[in-house]
Amino acid sequence: MNFSYSEKVQALQNKLTEFMDEYVYPNEKLYHEQIDKNDPFSKIPPIMEELKEKAKQHGLWNLFLPESEYGAGLTNLEYAPLCEIMGRSAIAPEVFNCAAPDTGNMEVLVRYGTEAHKEQWLKPLLAGEIRSCFSMTEPDVASSDATNIQASIVRDGDEYVINGTKWWSSGAGDPRCKIAIVMGKNDPSAPTHEQQSMILVPLDAPGVTIKRILPVFGYDHAPHGHAEIEYKNVRVPASNMLWGEGKGFAIAQGRLGPGRIHHCMRTIGAAERALEEMCKRVQNRVAFGKRLSDQGVIQEWIAEARIEIEQARLLTLKAAYMMDTVGNKEAKTEIAMIKVIAPNMALKIIDRAIQAFGAAGVSEDTPLAASWANIRTLRLADGPDEVHKRAIARYELKKYR
Amino acid sequence: MNFSYSEKVQALQNKLTEFMDEYVYPNEKLYHEQIDKNDPFSKIPPIMEELKEKAKQHGLWNLFLPESEYGAGLTNLEYAPLCEIMGRSAIAPEVFNCAAPDTGNMEVLVRYGTEAHKEQWLKPLLAGEIRSCFSMTEPDVASSDATNIQASIVRDGDEYVINGTKWWSSGAGDPRCKIAIVMGKNDPSAPTHEQQSMILVPLDAPGVTIKRILPVFGYDHAPHGHAEIEYKNVRVPASNMLWGEGKGFAIAQGRLGPGRIHHCMRTIGAAERALEEMCKRVQNRVAFGKRLSDQGVIQEWIAEARIEIEQARLLTLKAAYMMDTVGNKEAKTEIAMIKVIAPNMALKIIDRAIQAFGAAGVSEDTPLAASWANIRTLRLADGPDEVHKRAIARYELKKYR
Amino acid sequence: MNFSYSEKVQALQNKLTEFMDEYVYPNEKLYHEQIDKNDPFSKIPPIMEELKEKAKQHGLWNLFLPESEYGAGLTNLEYAPLCEIMGRSAIAPEVFNCAAPDTGNMEVLVRYGTEAHKEQWLKPLLAGEIRSCFSMTEPDVASSDATNIQASIVRDGDEYVINGTKWWSSGAGDPRCKIAIVMGKNDPSAPTHEQQSMILVPLDAPGVTIKRILPVFGYDHAPHGHAEIEYKNVRVPASNMLWGEGKGFAIAQGRLGPGRIHHCMRTIGAAERALEEMCKRVQNRVAFGKRLSDQGVIQEWIAEARIEIEQARLLTLKAAYMMDTVGNKEAKTEIAMIKVIAPNMALKIIDRAIQAFGAAGVSEDTPLAASWANIRTLRLADGPDEVHKRAIARYELKKYR
Amino acid sequence: MNFSYSEKVQALQNKLTEFMDEYVYPNEKLYHEQIDKNDPFSKIPPIMEELKEKAKQHGLWNLFLPESEYGAGLTNLEYAPLCEIMGRSAIAPEVFNCAAPDTGNMEVLVRYGTEAHKEQWLKPLLAGEIRSCFSMTEPDVASSDATNIQASIVRDGDEYVINGTKWWSSGAGDPRCKIAIVMGKNDPSAPTHEQQSMILVPLDAPGVTIKRILPVFGYDHAPHGHAEIEYKNVRVPASNMLWGEGKGFAIAQGRLGPGRIHHCMRTIGAAERALEEMCKRVQNRVAFGKRLSDQGVIQEWIAEARIEIEQARLLTLKAAYMMDTVGNKEAKTEIAMIKVIAPNMALKIIDRAIQAFGAAGVSEDTPLAASWANIRTLRLADGPDEVHKRAIARYELKKYR
Repeated sequence: MNFSYSEKVQALQNKLTEFMDEYVYPNEKLYHEQIDKNDPFSKIPPIMEELKEKAKQHGLWNLFLPESEYGAGLTNLEYAPLCEIMGRSAIAPEVFNCAAPDTGNMEVLVRYGTEAHKEQWLKPLLAGEIRSCFSMTEPDVASSDATNIQASIVRDGDEYVINGTKWWSSGAGDPRCKIAIVMGKNDPSAPTHEQQSMILVPLDAPGVTIKRILPVFGYDHAPHGHAEIEYKNVRVPASNMLWGEGKGFAIAQGRLGPGRIHHCMRTIGAAERALEEMCKRVQNRVAFGKRLSDQGVIQEWIAEARIEIEQARLLTLKAAYMMDTVGNKEAKTEIAMIKVIAPNMALKIIDRAIQAFGAAGVSEDTPLAASWANIRTLRLADGPDEVHKRAIARYELKKYR
Repeated sequence: MNFSYSEKVQALQNKLTEFMDEYVYPNEKLYHEQIDKNDPFSKIPPIMEELKEKAKQHGLWNLFLPESEYGAGLTNLEYAPLCEIMGRSAIAPEVFNCAAPDTGNMEVLVRYGTEAHKEQWLKPLLAGEIRSCFSMTEPDVASSDATNIQASIVRDGDEYVINGTKWWSSGAGDPRCKIAIVMGKNDPSAPTHEQQSMILVPLDAPGVTIKRILPVFGYDHAPHGHAEIEYKNVRVPASNMLWGEGKGFAIAQGRLGPGRIHHCMRTIGAAERALEEMCKRVQNRVAFGKRLSDQGVIQEWIAEARIEIEQARLLTLKAAYMMDTVGNKEAKTEIAMIKVIAPNMALKIIDRAIQAFGAAGVSEDTPLAASWANIRTLRLADGPDEVHKRAIARYELKKYR
Repeated sequence: MNFSYSEKVQALQNKLTEFMDEYVYPNEKLYHEQIDKNDPFSKIPPIMEELKEKAKQHGLWNLFLPESEYGAGLTNLEYAPLCEIMGRSAIAPEVFNCAAPDTGNMEVLVRYGTEAHKEQWLKPLLAGEIRSCFSMTEPDVASSDATNIQASIVRDGDEYVINGTKWWSSGAGDPRCKIAIVMGKNDPSAPTHEQQSMILVPLDAPGVTIKRILPVFGYDHAPHGHAEIEYKNVRVPASNMLWGEGKGFAIAQGRLGPGRIHHCMRTIGAAERALEEMCKRVQNRVAFGKRLSDQGVIQEWIAEARIEIEQARLLTLKAAYMMDTVGNKEAKTEIAMIKVIAPNMALKIIDRAIQAFGAAGVSEDTPLAASWANIRTLRLADGPDEVHKRAIARYELKKYR
Repeated sequence: MNFSYSEKVQALQNKLTEFMDEYVYPNEKLYHEQIDKNDPFSKIPPIMEELKEKAKQHGLWNLFLPESEYGAGLTNLEYAPLCEIMGRSAIAPEVFNCAAPDTGNMEVLVRYGTEAHKEQWLKPLLAGEIRSCFSMTEPDVASSDATNIQASIVRDGDEYVINGTKWWSSGAGDPRCKIAIVMGKNDPSAPTHEQQSMILVPLDAPGVTIKRILPVFGYDHAPHGHAEIEYKNVRVPASNMLWGEGKGFAIAQGRLGPGRIHHCMRTIGAAERALEEMCKRVQNRVAFGKRLSDQGVIQEWIAEARIEIEQARLLTLKAAYMMDTVGNKEAKTEIAMIKVIAPNMALKIIDRAIQAFGAAGVSEDTPLAASWANIRTLRLADGPDEVHKRAIARYELKKYR
């Protein structure tokens, strides 16, 4: 459990930080300005493709994806501090082709995809040419309990027929999004955890309709977009099935581990940035005769932020280390722990940074409000806090039974 | 300190509740649909004027404004439970002509305006024909300490010349907004609390420029809008000065009391609605084999919400009672207390309601996310929590000196 | 719902405050010194009987007990602010014959006792000549769910035979404690809420053994004492049954309401005293170049304390008002709310006061540590927080079913 | 930063855990029974000396003390998990001669003592023959700011004369306590951080009077005891001065680092034990038809406890690692962080365990209440939370100046 960053990692950290300073932060504003206000999901801000090209040139591409010939050869533990740096900017993860939900989807294709799947979908995803989405959550049932999921995937000859309505299929608003991994019920009579399957569905298949893009606290997150998608008698070749019928839960378990920890790593980066912004701001504002940074309450916020970030980072590194050494499944309690603590930690820090900034904090003039809204969804996505806490508790109780 | 609602108040509560049920809630969605997505600040959703007409017909108009011939003859204590009901819907306060910042501005005109001011500005405001804004906060200084304010109001012959940049002038995005109350420094050499003045500035005066509309989290709050306004060599007749030079602080103190308590009352209503939405939702969702409403954690949220709402309401009623009996100035500590507690209470409850709703909670499908963002600003508007706590503490400490 | 204190109440408040200042606070230390360290439960500090005599002379005696010829004719609402004052000192409630558990027991005797019970037990209790205890909680079962209670009360001819072990029978350590109200199962085959009875058991009855006195965070609370009592084949006349067989739950419901609200009232007084002590202290200590009272964090503690006390007091007054007007049963949700909030509020305030005092705070040099430990038990006594929150939530949910 | 436990450490963990199971836990009750209730500070429970002998035989002795020939050759990082195990029982640290304040005092003697000091005091301390105390805190000033300290240490020929009153000299109640390290002002005219010195004062020197033993909540912590000590014209040889005049602050900085981290390690052990006790208890109690362990609220407590312990442990290990690699001074921010977080984390967990236990939790029937009270003092000892947070914040702010 060695958390020191190796020379290789330190070199990448430096390179990444320089890249962020030189290319990413200075273009955050431009990125948003390049979005077409009248048709925000129509095209990608050109600066993004420029930045992606630059990242490739700098060898900062596909740094995720451990244990695979397709990745950069980094372990989860090595990737963590890099992913954290990317999390400091809302636009950065895509720049390095390390954005959700693509990383999770690529992991699924690497592990469970056939050669044909890899050729058709994994390669362009790895190249940053297309994007993907993950269609699991449904509006009509409490999807936190995945056994509730109602979409159907029914075999009909050489095809599967998919029916159901999904929402929060993030990234489906993006015009480059070409493929969805859809979870649905394949066999309602099977044992509970073998009823579900995952299948590949091209977004241009007949019967796939994006009903609307869901806002997050007023943000449309264009051009990414969280979509509500109707799948109505959608037919795909039987070969699109991932791993096999009834393997949906097993894949979910494998997919969600890396996906969750990536979110946590990025969240720590977002918390660090909020703390940094707060520290800078409070040394430059005076109220009631002294700098805000001399106010005891502000100092308390800063100290608590530093303590909580340090703690969350160490626990995230531990989870990453366990994924590397004993596997995602054995690491599931540690993953659950960081899944709970990282967003809650960051939300508290960002909220206090907002408070320190005053009205500027809730506006577009700082990254804080957008960061808060984004991270607020992480207390729900991939399972709400309460479901993860329940799992942690049950694991703990088992020790004493 | 009798908090029982009189028969008159109960009758108004019933009338208002019926009106909300019949006209307001069913039109919330329509209101937002009627906003022109391509030019959201260009016009008012027609349903608003229809609803205002209906409210007038039902005698539910200008219920605020105690101790004035212009109002409905209700005390603050009587108005509180009515304002609370209005706070349940984001569009309701305007329907009844009880919306911020107009109510506060009308109070200022009633108290400190000349007959000419009243004729020109108060009357159309009371009639709901025009709207107004309040230009106090500045981007360049910590405006929580009002002595920092830098805008200048300089006498030049029969006129005053106003220079400065203000932001968070809420309501200035509205095409009906015609008049601003601007606070600025009149005499930097005067004693600290006599340097500032307040003056009436028509928004169509030369030199007044709306630079941009500030978003709150991702919401533009169209057509209301929080504006950044540049006042550049704006000239108004000397008679536009309110009360007199150097009276800015004194007016602010008088203005902000009612403004703050109205926000608190509405906030309690928003919290009640969130609790109601949560209670309904959790009885209709099943996860892990039982209704969410049977989960202990959810029950804890509901119980704590009920306790905290009850407490905040009672303290708000006490503050209102004191404003009625000993005056806004004497009630300032109680007003500070509710100013702190009401938004924090509501934010906690709404956040938990969001969590209970899952992803729907952060979207547009419930009033929760928008309500949260709106109330989050109230921890900053009219002074951040920290400034009010400081005032409460100093008052408390004084008892033992 | 008029919370203004009447002239009668204000006069009593003043009288009580003067009495506290003149007689109670100055003798707190003496009281503890007069306890025999080698045999702390052997006798009562003589100063207590002197103070009781003085309180009687001043007409400050038995101020509780509304709606009864035996009491002082005060409603719950009128008693609340007086009880709060008594709660400021650990020794005060007994001085005025308003101490737990006697007040609750006297209420039971007034309501459910026969004339003979009143003659034998109520009169000496009202006179402050004897004391009493309440034997409900059992060590072997989760007594928070009263249906778990296992002690048996079995009819045998003209007698009842009582068997069982009770603990936290507070006050049973006192040599003047003569009578216990014991709750036990009378008929295990009856409907759940009619299985239990309450019966009067003289503490000198054969078979009653005090096994030990339970400490509370190291405090023995001598000479009061929380006793573990074994009842082994204890025989009492059948006439000792209160109200009737199977009425245990009904009496408990009646008894616990007043008992709980008295605890809350006193707890508010304890919180006020802690705040007062803190405010005095921090103005007299200097660290890092300024008075503690000038530290922002300390000011935040003071402000939050003031807000939380105000809120809890108002909610307690509302509960008292409801008990007076619609009865203890209808007021049960409000009682549950204050039962939860008052101790939690006070614990937070006292803990912060301890922190402000530094090491002195955890010692005997301030009333804080003892007060904290005492109030910590109130989150468990008469039902833990969690049980009350559950009840509040169920009540709330019912509105929307 | 390798946090994996080496084989050596794992072997010691196992050995220590077995020792705890076999000898320590089963004798906790006996230890307290062997204290003479009528004269609790008169003698040491015999079981303690027996256990110490056994610990020596098992090679579990003086495991602290890194970088010294006198210790067991363990680094801080290696000692951490062992110290944690000891922290699970209030009597364990002394059993292994790893108890406060002796470990800190021994560190001081090793680093700053002369050979004569070591011969006279360090050797018997290492042998567990005598004990020691640390006299720094004073009742009359806010000692959290050590520049406030008023005791005087004045040179007079070959002697120093010490005057002052100290309190919270923990361990001075113990009849085996022979030596105090006293901090006092040597030169009020020197630069602020060079005014103080530390000097060795035998407790039997004329002029040393133990005025009283201070209780912690209701615990006297016999036979250890927190003493208030008067030093009145106490004369000691000039050679008793540690390091040199004016070195008090420098020694304090060196001493308090290890002392603080030991407290944190033990505190984590105490939190683990509380969690374990809670997990066992809740699986064996039924209320309202289900086991407490099936209640969602209890599960939430367990999950949060597990997360918070994991985080605090990792941060403690990081601080230990830094002490080992970059030194106590460079590690001071990390030490400050765990100094804040460990006690707060543990107090929350223990408090919830108490709540889960019901009334048993506040009594002597579990280790919880005593553990809580003990750890509550750690939010004050060696500097209150607020002082450490201030230091952390200032360090953070400096990064952006």
